[in-house]
Amino acid sequence: MSLINLDYISANPLLPEVQEAMIDAIRKSYGNPSSANRLGDEATEALEKARDSVTGLINNAVSKEIVFTSGGTESINHAVKGVAMAKAEKGNHIVTSNIEHNAVLRSIRRLRMLDYKVTSVPVDEYGRVDPDDVAAAIKDDTILVTIMHGNNEIGTIQPIKEIAEITREKKVIFHSDAVTSVGVVPIDVQDLGVDLLSFSANQFYGPSGVGGLYIRQGTGLWSIHDGGVQENNKRAGTENLIGIIGMGVAADLARRDMDDRVKATGRLKEKMIKGLKENIPDIFINGHPEHSLPNLVSVSIQFIEGEGIVLMLDDEGIAASTRSACAAGALQASHVLLSIGRDFADAQGTLVLCFGRETTEADIDRFLEELTGVVSTLRSMSPLYRQARGA
Amino acid sequence: MSLINLDYISANPLLPEVQEAMIDAIRKSYGNPSSANRLGDEATEALEKARDSVTGLINNAVSKEIVFTSGGTESINHAVKGVAMAKAEKGNHIVTSNIEHNAVLRSIRRLRMLDYKVTSVPVDEYGRVDPDDVAAAIKDDTILVTIMHGNNEIGTIQPIKEIAEITREKKVIFHSDAVTSVGVVPIDVQDLGVDLLSFSANQFYGPSGVGGLYIRQGTGLWSIHDGGVQENNKRAGTENLIGIIGMGVAADLARRDMDDRVKATGRLKEKMIKGLKENIPDIFINGHPEHSLPNLVSVSIQFIEGEGIVLMLDDEGIAASTRSACAAGALQASHVLLSIGRDFADAQGTLVLCFGRETTEADIDRFLEELTGVVSTLRSMSPLYRQARGA
Repeated sequence: MSLINLDYISANPLLPEVQEAMIDAIRKSYGNPSSANRLGDEATEALEKARDSVTGLINNAVSKEIVFTSGGTESINHAVKGVAMAKAEKGNHIVTSNIEHNAVLRSIRRLRMLDYKVTSVPVDEYGRVDPDDVAAAIKDDTILVTIMHGNNEIGTIQPIKEIAEITREKKVIFHSDAVTSVGVVPIDVQDLGVDLLSFSANQFYGPSGVGGLYIRQGTGLWSIHDGGVQENNKRAGTENLIGIIGMGVAADLARRDMDDRVKATGRLKEKMIKGLKENIPDIFINGHPEHSLPNLVSVSIQFIEGEGIVLMLDDEGIAASTRSACAAGALQASHVLLSIGRDFADAQGTLVLCFGRETTEADIDRFLEELTGVVSTLRSMSPLYRQARGA
Repeated sequence: MSLINLDYISANPLLPEVQEAMIDAIRKSYGNPSSANRLGDEATEALEKARDSVTGLINNAVSKEIVFTSGGTESINHAVKGVAMAKAEKGNHIVTSNIEHNAVLRSIRRLRMLDYKVTSVPVDEYGRVDPDDVAAAIKDDTILVTIMHGNNEIGTIQPIKEIAEITREKKVIFHSDAVTSVGVVPIDVQDLGVDLLSFSANQFYGPSGVGGLYIRQGTGLWSIHDGGVQENNKRAGTENLIGIIGMGVAADLARRDMDDRVKATGRLKEKMIKGLKENIPDIFINGHPEHSLPNLVSVSIQFIEGEGIVLMLDDEGIAASTRSACAAGALQASHVLLSIGRDFADAQGTLVLCFGRETTEADIDRFLEELTGVVSTLRSMSPLYRQARGA
């Protein structure tokens, strides 16, 4: 029985082409791009080739506007803290939303400890921000708006372009955490109009621990890694060249295959949602029905605990998760689910199912079958369920 | 003609065993250590195995005191800024030395923009800090002492243990940037008595873009990457597992081969210094004759420019550098060389020669021969030289 992976959100398997490029880079044992000798030249060439590839994926016109980082979390910290620090003389107010990833939330929590002020705009029942709320939240001392692109727990995609029109008019820097979106859906930074955009290689089958930050030319922000003059003097530290080379190849493939991937995952998502609704009573499908990532389904299953479902599915060879892996160690109910109106119990009974290239229709069928059994077993032991059903 | 690499300080080639471990990890395409399912379990096991290996290399008793980072620069920024931020209520004064790496210098420069105060202690002609100077610099509001272990430009090793005795007595947190030392010379954090120690995998033939920060239990500091609960809640972001696995193997090998490596590079260093003194007039060998890294030679060659030497050596298939790769884009004279009393011109005529496992005595011979020719050619064109020689 082969493993069915519905936990792509935690870790996407590396594409064969990405693997080969990284293995080739390891065997080459490149020098340091910052060296002035020939060992450095080859490394620089490989680094800049990868930067061009990533630039192409987000339709950025200027390759130097991409900074390589150690992943989405670093990109987000760099953007949020970097702008806050650099603009402290202009003001100390930040606008964000109620459904951001922990990397944004906790970066902002740090800034609050340094006396920054925050307004967090709400979302509707589908997890969407209203751009008018963002406009209303911006004050004279607002220095940053940070709103994510695709949500990592419910998949909802925000009206980024509309928000960018507002921030431009009000001359406030706009960062979007697009970690779950870049490489999964078409992202065009020129069309979106954002100033800063965070992303991560693993979401498009590149390695973990590598990411990027798009910094529109002229956007003033502090580095969070100070030191050498790498990355156009915007991010110090010798580059993870092997990882970056993998990211470059993954970016090329994501651009080439974007349409196919969106269509393929979209079909699976439709099948999954239909199957869930038909087979399992008392559930909620979370997220926006239209403005949503094609590779992610969030389902709240009433009266039982998500952790129990994940463990039982794991026994059947199915990898799933209850929420973003980054929060796996945390015990609180998901702030995202509470924000869209789920209660505490339903939030605890939620699965995040994320799939990709290797997922088949047969996988979805087997998952639905196993899940139906697991839910029925767990519910038969659930006092909550018996109470609700009057049993 | 094969390439002779005397630029190990910029990039150490990956050991074959490290390459194989990383290639194996790439082929396995691990999950996310934070996932609650079986894909996560395998990844967690690989991650913690690497942590044990790194723990062993620095003789740390508790594995959880190691945090994996994206390299020495991140580790240093984390340590310096993290302590400064966390201890702001106690004070705002930092003690450092005149010969730190740019990652320390520029982290501190950022902190000065936030009104932190700094005392930088001098070094002697060999580049060594006097512990008494550190003691005298510590005031009631001192929150951090940060002094490097082995200097990346001249190789001098600082009296870290003596300084740690002072900081302990005065209850000030002590960080040491040991990026050029860990894996190159024996480092024992328990014996040294430091609170924080930064290091990087590439210095001991692991991959670039991976490093670690030793955080003695109970040392309060802020994270610079906030977000998920990875790394014992000390450093957010999905791990660069492939790189970390490579670092773990490199750490095991560094521990096993430490004595041999120290002896082998020490012999080459002796030969190199002897050869330089015998073949090239008007030079200074920089750094401490005894307390010094065994794999690095710094030589200031009077009357000519280091950049010219590097380019001409590159034509002959020899990779060398004028100073740390991280500063390669910067045009100022080395602050380290100025601090030990070199003048501006001599600082500009300096080579940093760093070698390792694959360096042979024949490499040193050929280097000395080529260098003698290059120096003589460049000096014959140097007005400075003609002036000094009265020609």
